[in-house]
Amino acid sequence: MTARIITLTTDYGTSDHLVGTLKGVILNINPEAKIVDINHHVAPYDVLDGALSIGAAYRYFPARTIHVVVVDPGVGTQRRPLLVAGETQYFIAPDNGVLSMVYEKEASVSVRHITADHYFLNPISSTFHGRDIFAPAAAWLSKGSQTASFGEEVTDYVRFALPKPKASGNALKGVVLRVDNFGNLMTNLTMEDLPPAMTAEGKIKLHIDGKEVRQLAQTYAQGAPGEPFAIPGSSGFLEISLHKGNAARALGVHRGAEVTLDLA
Amino acid sequence: MTARIITLTTDYGTSDHLVGTLKGVILNINPEAKIVDINHHVAPYDVLDGALSIGAAYRYFPARTIHVVVVDPGVGTQRRPLLVAGETQYFIAPDNGVLSMVYEKEASVSVRHITADHYFLNPISSTFHGRDIFAPAAAWLSKGSQTASFGEEVTDYVRFALPKPKASGNALKGVVLRVDNFGNLMTNLTMEDLPPAMTAEGKIKLHIDGKEVRQLAQTYAQGAPGEPFAIPGSSGFLEISLHKGNAARALGVHRGAEVTLDLA
Amino acid sequence: MTARIITLTTDYGTSDHLVGTLKGVILNINPEAKIVDINHHVAPYDVLDGALSIGAAYRYFPARTIHVVVVDPGVGTQRRPLLVAGETQYFIAPDNGVLSMVYEKEASVSVRHITADHYFLNPISSTFHGRDIFAPAAAWLSKGSQTASFGEEVTDYVRFALPKPKASGNALKGVVLRVDNFGNLMTNLTMEDLPPAMTAEGKIKLHIDGKEVRQLAQTYAQGAPGEPFAIPGSSGFLEISLHKGNAARALGVHRGAEVTLDLA
Repeated sequence: MTARIITLTTDYGTSDHLVGTLKGVILNINPEAKIVDINHHVAPYDVLDGALSIGAAYRYFPARTIHVVVVDPGVGTQRRPLLVAGETQYFIAPDNGVLSMVYEKEASVSVRHITADHYFLNPISSTFHGRDIFAPAAAWLSKGSQTASFGEEVTDYVRFALPKPKASGNALKGVVLRVDNFGNLMTNLTMEDLPPAMTAEGKIKLHIDGKEVRQLAQTYAQGAPGEPFAIPGSSGFLEISLHKGNAARALGVHRGAEVTLDLA
Repeated sequence: MTARIITLTTDYGTSDHLVGTLKGVILNINPEAKIVDINHHVAPYDVLDGALSIGAAYRYFPARTIHVVVVDPGVGTQRRPLLVAGETQYFIAPDNGVLSMVYEKEASVSVRHITADHYFLNPISSTFHGRDIFAPAAAWLSKGSQTASFGEEVTDYVRFALPKPKASGNALKGVVLRVDNFGNLMTNLTMEDLPPAMTAEGKIKLHIDGKEVRQLAQTYAQGAPGEPFAIPGSSGFLEISLHKGNAARALGVHRGAEVTLDLA
Repeated sequence: MTARIITLTTDYGTSDHLVGTLKGVILNINPEAKIVDINHHVAPYDVLDGALSIGAAYRYFPARTIHVVVVDPGVGTQRRPLLVAGETQYFIAPDNGVLSMVYEKEASVSVRHITADHYFLNPISSTFHGRDIFAPAAAWLSKGSQTASFGEEVTDYVRFALPKPKASGNALKGVVLRVDNFGNLMTNLTMEDLPPAMTAEGKIKLHIDGKEVRQLAQTYAQGAPGEPFAIPGSSGFLEISLHKGNAARALGVHRGAEVTLDLA
């Protein structure tokens, strides 16, 4: 029998012992668990950023993987801890919408409110439920505890939609959702938002913070030197990039910046 | 038989191959070892910061775990490499006090000076004992080598006490020990330092860098918007936080800042 | 049978889901693989920096390890994906020179152009071959696929030499190749470049950015307080360091800075 995989996605950062502590808690309960970090640099308290991270990565993992997602500004309050069974994988997270992209992508989910406190560490702190609730719940699930033993199903769980681009006259107004390590700007525009003629010609008309982007490339190397260009990103969204450069820095643009796609 | 867990805590950072090299050395000796990162962002050369990191995390790991802790400004000098057997776990580290919190928390320890150089890589560099001494020693221990085979017991190992808050008139003067990824300021004050009335009422009188903190919250979400508050942290120390914000940035305060608790 | 080790070296950074996605892809194909991070903070697009990172670390890993190295500014273009069999280990990387240090250190290599697209994810994006080509190829190799099944051998693969110090009158001009987490400046000068008298006396005459370095230490602790000194680094190169300090910051020097060794 293959060891169960538990992934971790948090906003804890990696500059202290917090993530290591989660791993200790899991291995203390199930020494056979295989722990994989997805991302510990979700923007602090940012539930949308966490939702994007787990949403982009989870489907590449094998069936029966357990994904722990802790972006949890409401830690210690009444917000519920959840155990979600998707089509083939499991998710453990606070009920604050951080699993919204999972709910959107899975054909069906069963969502349970984790109330079985014999699975928790004791005492439970009011500031570190990753350690005291989410990690131990994942470890027990990985050891074979049945989902039904964690608590009752609920249907009123929190979910939100990704901000969609808005029509505005002959244009579509989108937003920069994320900036990656290379300075690529991931927008909420998709290839379906582009008129087919643009895609065919490799041309586009984007405005971002007063600057214009005209090229629609298929590979980073096609980008003209020093000229930001648009490109279909690997998560399905349109990105703005700079060949061997940093588009975010060159354009002076951050997450949240407005992007206007001229459809005329 | 379960694979032995080896944890790593260092000040190497993660921007080059150093940590990866440690892992290669361990797996070359014991391919079955299970390696877990606790923290590689201990402040460079900072033995106290390393002591806090391992001290906060180790007890969450299973029995027989081997913790490698390398914060080692004296690398290449006569400072001794140590193998410490605690109640149920093992520690491998330079003899410079980086295990002080372990010595404080464990009921009893047996400390050995590692001298068995057949466990080391050959040749031994004078600048990278993590690779040449500490990692291979941990790997051999994880493979079943007996602790007595590593060297003789010593009793004169280096240890220091955590800086304690100091009484000063009707106040207690503490210090910021650490700042986490959220900007929470972990002080060396504990809940036991607070008069019971403060805890009961949820009020406190703290001064830090000329600013005042008046609220004692139990969860981050209780914090009044934009107002820094005190909160019992998950490692047992009082912290200063800002709800959905960054207290360190808002207060312009760093590690080492003085905190005054008014007991009047 | 021991699980196969797959290492990862990339310029993806760790602030999003990219590295986690690679791991999911690998574990989905071979849940028994043991994945080890070497370095995800290679300077973006910097093939030389990537070559140094894998070159410094790989030999510490056991035989049969598979090293995935993705620094890939040409992703999506005609540059070839390679599978390299060294003396005892394997390497999977784009054909852009990022394996140059491996070619230099291995007595012999067999280099194949990976063309067997049944090993790839489908569809293949044009921007994320780490996920779609390199990670799955490594996973299949770790499961026992034969190297010959990946594609034909090639001999015209890209390789470059490390920049060598240049003689200039009575001096040798070198360069800072890398700055580590402690601010140590790793140069391309080696101990063989130093006149034996210097090594014997512990003296040196280096110039860097208008400042002079006179001490050649053997351990960091020997460095005079506040005085940058030279030291043989753990990767075989001469480094410039500051005892319990940050030489890069103190000297105001970055990667690429010129270093002059006075041989007179």
